[in-house]
Amino acid sequence: MSTSSFSESPGNYKVRDLSLAEAGRHQIRLAEHEMPGLMALRAEYGEAQPLAGARIAGSIHMTVQTAVLIETLTALGAQVRWASCNIFSTQDEAAAAIVVGPQGTPDAPSGVPVFAWKGESLEEYWECTEQILLWPAGADGEYAGPNMILDDGGDATLLVHNGLAYERVGAVPADTVAGEPDHSDEANVVHALLRRVLQEDPLRWTTIGENILGVTEETTTGVHRLYQLAEAGQLLFPAINVNDSVTKSKFDNKYGIRHSLPDGINRATDVLMGGKVAFVAGYGDVGKGAAEAFRGQGARVIVSEIDPICALQAAMDGYQVARIEDVLDEADFFITTTGNKDVITAAHLSAMKNKAIVGNIGHFDNEIDMAGLALVPGVTRTEIKAQVHEWTFTEGERAGRSIIVLSEGRLLNLGNATGHPSFVMSNSFTNQVIGQIEVFTKAGTDEEYPVAVHRLPKILDEKVARLHLDALGVRMTELSPSQADYLGIDPAGPYKAEHYRY
Amino acid sequence: MSTSSFSESPGNYKVRDLSLAEAGRHQIRLAEHEMPGLMALRAEYGEAQPLAGARIAGSIHMTVQTAVLIETLTALGAQVRWASCNIFSTQDEAAAAIVVGPQGTPDAPSGVPVFAWKGESLEEYWECTEQILLWPAGADGEYAGPNMILDDGGDATLLVHNGLAYERVGAVPADTVAGEPDHSDEANVVHALLRRVLQEDPLRWTTIGENILGVTEETTTGVHRLYQLAEAGQLLFPAINVNDSVTKSKFDNKYGIRHSLPDGINRATDVLMGGKVAFVAGYGDVGKGAAEAFRGQGARVIVSEIDPICALQAAMDGYQVARIEDVLDEADFFITTTGNKDVITAAHLSAMKNKAIVGNIGHFDNEIDMAGLALVPGVTRTEIKAQVHEWTFTEGERAGRSIIVLSEGRLLNLGNATGHPSFVMSNSFTNQVIGQIEVFTKAGTDEEYPVAVHRLPKILDEKVARLHLDALGVRMTELSPSQADYLGIDPAGPYKAEHYRY
Amino acid sequence: MSTSSFSESPGNYKVRDLSLAEAGRHQIRLAEHEMPGLMALRAEYGEAQPLAGARIAGSIHMTVQTAVLIETLTALGAQVRWASCNIFSTQDEAAAAIVVGPQGTPDAPSGVPVFAWKGESLEEYWECTEQILLWPAGADGEYAGPNMILDDGGDATLLVHNGLAYERVGAVPADTVAGEPDHSDEANVVHALLRRVLQEDPLRWTTIGENILGVTEETTTGVHRLYQLAEAGQLLFPAINVNDSVTKSKFDNKYGIRHSLPDGINRATDVLMGGKVAFVAGYGDVGKGAAEAFRGQGARVIVSEIDPICALQAAMDGYQVARIEDVLDEADFFITTTGNKDVITAAHLSAMKNKAIVGNIGHFDNEIDMAGLALVPGVTRTEIKAQVHEWTFTEGERAGRSIIVLSEGRLLNLGNATGHPSFVMSNSFTNQVIGQIEVFTKAGTDEEYPVAVHRLPKILDEKVARLHLDALGVRMTELSPSQADYLGIDPAGPYKAEHYRY
Amino acid sequence: MSTSSFSESPGNYKVRDLSLAEAGRHQIRLAEHEMPGLMALRAEYGEAQPLAGARIAGSIHMTVQTAVLIETLTALGAQVRWASCNIFSTQDEAAAAIVVGPQGTPDAPSGVPVFAWKGESLEEYWECTEQILLWPAGADGEYAGPNMILDDGGDATLLVHNGLAYERVGAVPADTVAGEPDHSDEANVVHALLRRVLQEDPLRWTTIGENILGVTEETTTGVHRLYQLAEAGQLLFPAINVNDSVTKSKFDNKYGIRHSLPDGINRATDVLMGGKVAFVAGYGDVGKGAAEAFRGQGARVIVSEIDPICALQAAMDGYQVARIEDVLDEADFFITTTGNKDVITAAHLSAMKNKAIVGNIGHFDNEIDMAGLALVPGVTRTEIKAQVHEWTFTEGERAGRSIIVLSEGRLLNLGNATGHPSFVMSNSFTNQVIGQIEVFTKAGTDEEYPVAVHRLPKILDEKVARLHLDALGVRMTELSPSQADYLGIDPAGPYKAEHYRY
Repeated sequence: MSTSSFSESPGNYKVRDLSLAEAGRHQIRLAEHEMPGLMALRAEYGEAQPLAGARIAGSIHMTVQTAVLIETLTALGAQVRWASCNIFSTQDEAAAAIVVGPQGTPDAPSGVPVFAWKGESLEEYWECTEQILLWPAGADGEYAGPNMILDDGGDATLLVHNGLAYERVGAVPADTVAGEPDHSDEANVVHALLRRVLQEDPLRWTTIGENILGVTEETTTGVHRLYQLAEAGQLLFPAINVNDSVTKSKFDNKYGIRHSLPDGINRATDVLMGGKVAFVAGYGDVGKGAAEAFRGQGARVIVSEIDPICALQAAMDGYQVARIEDVLDEADFFITTTGNKDVITAAHLSAMKNKAIVGNIGHFDNEIDMAGLALVPGVTRTEIKAQVHEWTFTEGERAGRSIIVLSEGRLLNLGNATGHPSFVMSNSFTNQVIGQIEVFTKAGTDEEYPVAVHRLPKILDEKVARLHLDALGVRMTELSPSQADYLGIDPAGPYKAEHYRY
Repeated sequence: MSTSSFSESPGNYKVRDLSLAEAGRHQIRLAEHEMPGLMALRAEYGEAQPLAGARIAGSIHMTVQTAVLIETLTALGAQVRWASCNIFSTQDEAAAAIVVGPQGTPDAPSGVPVFAWKGESLEEYWECTEQILLWPAGADGEYAGPNMILDDGGDATLLVHNGLAYERVGAVPADTVAGEPDHSDEANVVHALLRRVLQEDPLRWTTIGENILGVTEETTTGVHRLYQLAEAGQLLFPAINVNDSVTKSKFDNKYGIRHSLPDGINRATDVLMGGKVAFVAGYGDVGKGAAEAFRGQGARVIVSEIDPICALQAAMDGYQVARIEDVLDEADFFITTTGNKDVITAAHLSAMKNKAIVGNIGHFDNEIDMAGLALVPGVTRTEIKAQVHEWTFTEGERAGRSIIVLSEGRLLNLGNATGHPSFVMSNSFTNQVIGQIEVFTKAGTDEEYPVAVHRLPKILDEKVARLHLDALGVRMTELSPSQADYLGIDPAGPYKAEHYRY
Repeated sequence: MSTSSFSESPGNYKVRDLSLAEAGRHQIRLAEHEMPGLMALRAEYGEAQPLAGARIAGSIHMTVQTAVLIETLTALGAQVRWASCNIFSTQDEAAAAIVVGPQGTPDAPSGVPVFAWKGESLEEYWECTEQILLWPAGADGEYAGPNMILDDGGDATLLVHNGLAYERVGAVPADTVAGEPDHSDEANVVHALLRRVLQEDPLRWTTIGENILGVTEETTTGVHRLYQLAEAGQLLFPAINVNDSVTKSKFDNKYGIRHSLPDGINRATDVLMGGKVAFVAGYGDVGKGAAEAFRGQGARVIVSEIDPICALQAAMDGYQVARIEDVLDEADFFITTTGNKDVITAAHLSAMKNKAIVGNIGHFDNEIDMAGLALVPGVTRTEIKAQVHEWTFTEGERAGRSIIVLSEGRLLNLGNATGHPSFVMSNSFTNQVIGQIEVFTKAGTDEEYPVAVHRLPKILDEKVARLHLDALGVRMTELSPSQADYLGIDPAGPYKAEHYRY
Repeated sequence: MSTSSFSESPGNYKVRDLSLAEAGRHQIRLAEHEMPGLMALRAEYGEAQPLAGARIAGSIHMTVQTAVLIETLTALGAQVRWASCNIFSTQDEAAAAIVVGPQGTPDAPSGVPVFAWKGESLEEYWECTEQILLWPAGADGEYAGPNMILDDGGDATLLVHNGLAYERVGAVPADTVAGEPDHSDEANVVHALLRRVLQEDPLRWTTIGENILGVTEETTTGVHRLYQLAEAGQLLFPAINVNDSVTKSKFDNKYGIRHSLPDGINRATDVLMGGKVAFVAGYGDVGKGAAEAFRGQGARVIVSEIDPICALQAAMDGYQVARIEDVLDEADFFITTTGNKDVITAAHLSAMKNKAIVGNIGHFDNEIDMAGLALVPGVTRTEIKAQVHEWTFTEGERAGRSIIVLSEGRLLNLGNATGHPSFVMSNSFTNQVIGQIEVFTKAGTDEEYPVAVHRLPKILDEKVARLHLDALGVRMTELSPSQADYLGIDPAGPYKAEHYRY
């Protein structure tokens, strides 16, 4: 793809094409209506500007929903630079609209610097991530780099932590070679970048790291990395675990999937779900949403589980609980939701019902052994359309049978449809913004968050929920003083013990 | 659009582009797996060739599913010519694949004559319909025109009946003028065609009409026309009302909509349904499917009804039953399923909740008063994307509020998604093929269908169901002779009284 | 049971104990609130007294709901005499309250003659039925016997028809002997009664038969008898088939069962349904209600069917469809809903999962082969409590396993609970009262119903539904004149074609 | 009630009537089948006898399910004495069967000492509780009193703690007088008992307290008391919080209620739920189960909430969320599930729809202001049957309207039906037994539980679930070593982080 197709202002933005901005602006406007939490924060904090002085390096899929997030951060006073956290997930019209800004034009953009386009190479991806951490120098020579990170998956956080670690020892690890056990193409790309930076400025990451007041992190994966850093004593700044807010994990994971799983399957295959048998691996929040989606379409659902408590829940909710190997010839759909690897093996894939549809809705793409599938003797792969492939078995007793694999085993709701709807993301992103306000405004005060991984206080989790109720027509009941006294809680919340499970 | 983009063999086929055939063939192959009824008929009747000698003029949306129908008819011995029954509904790759045929190539097509492409003009549409009724002359001068019609909406049947009526009086009605009460652009187009034919061959329709042995008709609308012709004593040949088979009306209408309604809304808007309020006008089979689809996604459904029996059913199924005017400010989705006109008026549209999503899933596009909407003072229309328009009210107390209208009020499952899935259409089309066999093979025998409108015998309706059970893993129980005797029925069916309601 | 426990006024009433009337009156008052259809008829027709002059012989389970029916009939001007149609189904407090009447006292009863108590012998049962057909002579010697029958199962109708047939030949058939193929204890009881009457009054049934203007019949069984009489040319008077009103078959059968099936199982066993496997034989209206009830409690439902259309419906509704012999060791509940015999055989019963719960919710008690069960070698029967028996297998590989049988295979919702709730019966009984008004008021007019079996006109079926909507908070939409014109129907109904399936 | 109706062996047992034992034994046998967790513990630990030496004072509703619990404890080696924890909840036949024992006879009972009958006075209740803490002296004079408590609500624990506190100061608080602010009849009864004991044996509670190794507590209420004691530094021995096991709170509360709520309503009223509107106050676990139960019967559910997170869940699950004051005239059922007081006030009760049905399924009876209802001017109360009362308003604009109150505002599933089914209680009680084993076997070892309130380790929670899977036909998937390694967990569990919400 030629660079000439880009709209680019070096150091200031690089997106596909600023002329897409108008289409993106329409979508942003409609999405704002579906993101009442973010809009409520603009109304509540617009005047106070709690993020004035915040310089946020943001790394989340550069979608229409993220556009509403970005413009919420700026409405609260923040300066922002943005990259996507996935090479494929950028919606180019959203990126363009953010660069142009609500008041600007493609010729005179007045928005936010964005470095993101659909279909980046790995090198480009990490350069974009670098860009959000490089800010123009301040007028008076003062430090003007980022002082906050807003992360999804932890790549921006990782760059700072690893860069700083290498600066301390004055060297970047050597590249690995394909075939070595721990080889990773992506690690080599990151190392090359850090090697270059180390030459350019041997204290860049140290400086940046010292000035970062905190990070808010969206995902299970990123949170896992943060807990590891904290345990190892290497965490540089306080971190907010947004992922484990109830209004994230119990909404995004369950209700988001209930919506976007059937959407992805429909757009990919147009195959009826009603009357069919759907196998769902895992009955966590994601599996619960997936099972409910299939049932709502009249499919019969079979669940697999390794955790007896979740298995018992599945049974009590009316689902059959079985092992995949016992239903290979019975199920029409096979969906993984586990967070585990090798949940569907090549042997499973080879033995499925003819024309079975196979997809993954868990975070990583190793739930289905796609590499193993490609090695099945005689198997052939036919692209039916983008992100939909038929794999046909040509040898042995399965000769002639085929299966349909969605998004090559990657997240099918993003690969075959458009991911979660705005309303769900509004819950997740409102946690993000609140987390940014918490850390930024309390830094340097008595209430400063210590360098550790924190969950948001329950009262703020409840606030996120509260901001989404009006849009659904919910009318809340209020505790009377005597009732609150009886329960021993504040009428304004929080309402539950920490270990309450909802 | 320039004619040069067509693949055309005059009198033999006219489709968009034969090079699309390969993509179409992949989809046909996958659809065959989802259409077990049609494939079972191929297996059952492939050797006997009951349709040998049948020359079928077919008019149904030229989709991938219809392609499987066409190749089933030819597998049973029929000759076929095909047009679409809607100017927008052709899938060009399916049309191309049918012309090329499973064994042919784009350079040497060996399939079925098709006259259909996406985006015909009205003139082109009726010329295509004419083409399926014009067959090459037989080798020996014998009549070689169509002897069967397979219809959806009744346009092919109408052309023959009207053409013959005008031949009898030797004249075609004069064109109407825009502004006259009964003016119709489409009627003028049909009249121009028939005027031309009357000049070319003053007995064409008489000849064709005399040779038609029967028609099988798919839709409520087409069936309604047939009953009117029969009542007026003008019906020319026996007709099979496929629409009122249980395996059509209780499956296509209910389970097809349950699938394709949310699919259309999702592809159009990406808006969350969960937690929202959905208003469904009508609780017939289509409304039942629509309500179940919304509930399955966690929406709260409010139904409106004019029929107290259906209203009572809705209430007993747990839905609120209310009038549209009482929920305009409460519902997030407004869907019409009634078969009635002016169900949502311009006044209703003007008073809805901001960003309400409005669509129709009933057959005709007059359920929502789009014309009235366009006349609301100050209203503006913005295309968000194809088939998705935002209408913004700029005057009075609604100024600034807008609504989203899908497919301009036409069937949203076809306009915003791909219509019903193959498995559902397999039920409907298996009725069609069985109807063709019934009429064609019994013509001239003691069992000949008289010239009237007939429903298929219940035993054949049951057969259609039976052919779709294996694919769903259903295992049937069989009546013992003593049980059948006790019930006073044949162990092989039919199993129910005619008035049984399922 | 000693006769001394009865309240009795020979020829006028015979019930258990009039002092139960107060308790019965409370329950009647509460049931009236749940029977809005009947109460609406009282309001609509109370002044006009359309049943003035009607003398109705009524035979329906003498329950609280029937009490509301009886007092509706009298509120519309009718005289009534009543018996139960089942030896076990009388609620003695309801019978007492009806005899005492709303204004009477146990010492001075002023209500309706009732002949019914819980636990009649067969002889007593038929004597009670005779009593409702014997009215006190009119003051002036005019005929003052019954002129209408209101029936459930057809026993009152049968007595008149058979009595009259024997009068014509002057003889009653001889008794059969146990062991003969067609022997029936009950037939002998009926014959003995008719033999006595023939001696007392050789023209009694002829006189009664000539004066009956019509019958309204509630059940599938009774309707079946009526159609047989009509086909044989022996039907004496017009009959209204109440059973096939939509507001009866689609409500009583489906929604009534959804309520009363789990109620019966719970009261009988207190066993959790959630997470269990429930096998439901048959997916007609009763089976649909049963399956929905189990699913609503979190059970997994497996359905069996002989009719492929109903089987396809079950699959599309998300249920597994299998044969009983394949799930004997998997299901925890086995429920029959078929109307067929020997659906669960002794062999099935012997092979079920330990402690499986077995019950019937279909009309007759031959769906489960209880006689065969008793003959299984070594089987023992333990009464856990009334209507709940454990059958233990003591021989062979099943030794030690047992099953739980409810109500000895009879209707478990009546045997283990209290049958359908009042609201459902209000629909059925409103059809009854409307049927009585139709036949009685039109007799002798131009609109008189001919001697045949009739379904109520759809407009009256719709009226029954309409009378139950306010209680559920339903607000109906009304057709505008132009909409009604467009659809070609009357704005007041009927709204659907005769073959519409709802 | 005369004492002569009791079976009694002073100091050894006091129950209603030992001749009820046979009926109780049948029910115990059937319940065992539904309590696989307890039966599995018997199989696993029967030989090892981990509770040999344990002397357990047990206080839980003396039901059939508790009988299976008791005989599980003895099968594991424990000695047991038992009282009920509620004056009304004893099932007399279960109590009798436990005293008689599986091998004994009413004449020669050989079971467990039980002190419980249905309908105790408060004095009797506390004497029974005292009895389970008084054990016959050991043969050799060694201490032979209780060394473990198994509690439900905490009354046995309270008696020991309060008794010991009073012994320390040598005095019991004076009685309060009715009318004083903190007056409690029950407190006076307890004080009288403790005053008597203080005279009899001034060190009884000190001795007992010193010898108790621990308590396992079932309920939210009892657990709350324990946390209060622990915070005040007054807790005498370690306590296991059984209530907050996932397999208790997420099963008993949700799935138990889903079953027993409609059961209670049906037995009380026989009123149809389908098509009606049900108001459920609270959407915690109990509210979730209640809402699902109503929906499963075709009712439309309206939920109220004070917690925005639970409110958002309710909306996303498809329920309307409103305030009670806005739906008083719309709902047919009003059910409280909150754990709060005055949720339904007298003003609410006075303004409800005529014949509304009102009940409480939360733990305490103060959710509905019954006292306030009785003070409404002119209100009258009619007993329809036991535990079902009609309250009629006779003054003002509500004159003539009435409401139906279940169980006088107490737990309606216990008052109008039989409480939770055995399978659900098996989960809760298996936690109890495991808790007893944990504390008893680890006492005095390195793993001894410190004096504090503990939740059971997640691995044991998972074990409880695991023991209930076979009965539901669940087949578990097992982690491979490499998968477990990837996830960083043990293949045998525990599988989730502590804060995981299920």
